[in-house]
Amino acid sequence: MSDEARLAFAYLSRVAEPPCPQLAALVRREGPVEAAKLVKAGAVDADLARRTEARRDINTAAEDLHLLARRGGRLVTADDDEWPLLSFTGFAGVDHRARPEAHPPLALWVVGPGRLDDMAQRAVAIVGTRAATSYGEHVAAELAAGLVERDVTVVSGGAYGIDGAAHRATLGTDGFTVAVLASGIDVPYPSGHTALLHRIGQEGLLVSEYPPSVRPARHRFLTRNRLVAALSGATVVVEAGVRSGAANTAAWARALGRAVCAVPGPVTSAASVGCHALLRDEANLVTRAAEIVELIGHVGELAPDEVRPESMLDGLSEAEQRVYDAMPARGRRTVDQIAVASGLPPTQVLGPLSMLEVCGLVSRVDGYWRLCRPKP
Amino acid sequence: MSDEARLAFAYLSRVAEPPCPQLAALVRREGPVEAAKLVKAGAVDADLARRTEARRDINTAAEDLHLLARRGGRLVTADDDEWPLLSFTGFAGVDHRARPEAHPPLALWVVGPGRLDDMAQRAVAIVGTRAATSYGEHVAAELAAGLVERDVTVVSGGAYGIDGAAHRATLGTDGFTVAVLASGIDVPYPSGHTALLHRIGQEGLLVSEYPPSVRPARHRFLTRNRLVAALSGATVVVEAGVRSGAANTAAWARALGRAVCAVPGPVTSAASVGCHALLRDEANLVTRAAEIVELIGHVGELAPDEVRPESMLDGLSEAEQRVYDAMPARGRRTVDQIAVASGLPPTQVLGPLSMLEVCGLVSRVDGYWRLCRPKP
Repeated sequence: MSDEARLAFAYLSRVAEPPCPQLAALVRREGPVEAAKLVKAGAVDADLARRTEARRDINTAAEDLHLLARRGGRLVTADDDEWPLLSFTGFAGVDHRARPEAHPPLALWVVGPGRLDDMAQRAVAIVGTRAATSYGEHVAAELAAGLVERDVTVVSGGAYGIDGAAHRATLGTDGFTVAVLASGIDVPYPSGHTALLHRIGQEGLLVSEYPPSVRPARHRFLTRNRLVAALSGATVVVEAGVRSGAANTAAWARALGRAVCAVPGPVTSAASVGCHALLRDEANLVTRAAEIVELIGHVGELAPDEVRPESMLDGLSEAEQRVYDAMPARGRRTVDQIAVASGLPPTQVLGPLSMLEVCGLVSRVDGYWRLCRPKP
Repeated sequence: MSDEARLAFAYLSRVAEPPCPQLAALVRREGPVEAAKLVKAGAVDADLARRTEARRDINTAAEDLHLLARRGGRLVTADDDEWPLLSFTGFAGVDHRARPEAHPPLALWVVGPGRLDDMAQRAVAIVGTRAATSYGEHVAAELAAGLVERDVTVVSGGAYGIDGAAHRATLGTDGFTVAVLASGIDVPYPSGHTALLHRIGQEGLLVSEYPPSVRPARHRFLTRNRLVAALSGATVVVEAGVRSGAANTAAWARALGRAVCAVPGPVTSAASVGCHALLRDEANLVTRAAEIVELIGHVGELAPDEVRPESMLDGLSEAEQRVYDAMPARGRRTVDQIAVASGLPPTQVLGPLSMLEVCGLVSRVDGYWRLCRPKP
């Protein structure tokens, strides 16, 4: 892409509050350079003029790109190889009356060593409430570490609580993590995560639809959530209160046809109420990373069954089980007594007794039978 | 019913391990008195002869009924008004190849002041692992107390752990509870629950398919579970490990077309693994008694929505929200500055500002606007 086109995209990225499909349409029709000229001159239709009126005289494109370059970042657009096109095609299928923001970003401000398209091939979003419990943070970290083991990128929103636990656990296990921000890449939010976000920008990816210096705002978190969902094959909500933004990310994932997962928790915990609501609403219940990978992974990557504890009584037939149950805890019994206790005819008691004897569970002494060891 | 018929039922109740559909068919065809005579004489077909061979010479019917009477109990059969016929009709629809025990009981040994048919009109089973956590026992007790408030009978199996917590909480809130036993009503099991079971027999109902003195055995717990499910409109599993018998009760409930419910818990808890497996398998996720009653109750008894915390920002329109978000935390701004920050045209900023002023969220001083109170 030419420098002129890059500067035009940087200008356009700020001039309208994203997503602005009217502006995207103009760029498609005229190209970025001509589109920027038309917007600056106010030579656009009334709708787009209204949407760009407040900021059309602000052109900090050169400074913005300079700041980005100093941080080792790049402005990525649909004209770049790295553009994760397949992540965004799903927006076309969303009902735009219900979700007017269901549009791809015009451009993404990106800092970090990974390629956006590569990471989006195999990524899972781990999201949740800022007011996480230690249980939620523990589970978020366990899931993230499990995903790293399976070469999955962990996407989140950089917030306190679940997001932070997922990012940190991913970095701590040498995995790849992506933070999608609701502010410019130079506005670390929350400020307590400045160091964490800096490290993500060095080892993973910081991604924002907003140009430098843009502050986070409530509607920007909601707009940002659609990108978290779009860049991930599945969205996992670890903890969410009644009003958590994580439910909004999950709703985006569902609208985009991605897997929606939720982690159950104690019904006594307010931080799990949102997860239980999602589970009632057909979210996938997940407890381990392997179960998540099954939902995004390739055929053949099925989660192994839970390990079942073994018991020496597991292999017994029903008749053997009934005979075993009929044995007294202490003392001894005749075959007829065992038949009465078990409700089996005497002729059908001897076979099971022999099998139990072979298994070392019962023994025969002087025509009586007794248990070899106490019942479990 | 005549004393002779009652004695015959008592004899028949012991002579074959229940359920024995072949014996039930004979009773239907010949009546209980004649059926008992035929069995005693061995004058039955080969299949039934085999099933009754071990015990046909044992006749303790008179002593059994005497013991039952001394405890204030009664032997209830399909010939009695109290028989909960509708609870058992579901067995006819079950696939008997998969569930050979899907048959009604021949008779029930019952101790306690309630009527079986009355209680089964509006009953919920609360079941779970004996190895319950304090979380599980707490939730079982909360659910039981909530069901009592809603005039629901609490059915369970009298075991340690979840069962015991449900029974105790029901008694503690003056509710009606039923313990379905896997042993005779004179064989308290577990022995540590002797006092609890005695109290249930005085204030609720002790119910058993087994005649006095029969000891519990593994297959009898599984057979008993079908009655717990059948006598209840819904079965709620509060905690269950990988191999819990509670999952067996839930499977019976499903086979009988009753609602199956499970309570989620921490994914880090082995005692919730079975519940999460049930939830994946389409059990209803329940967290409160009201949600359970919704599944068994009459039309109109819908659980109230979770209370949502109120925020003064809830009623704002999208434009008002964007303008509010564009206000600086400290200091003041002009309308044009607010327009830039919010991405709205200046002409569309004044209306929202006025609304925010009316709400007491912002104020105007010397042509500047500022927040009236810190952002939440």
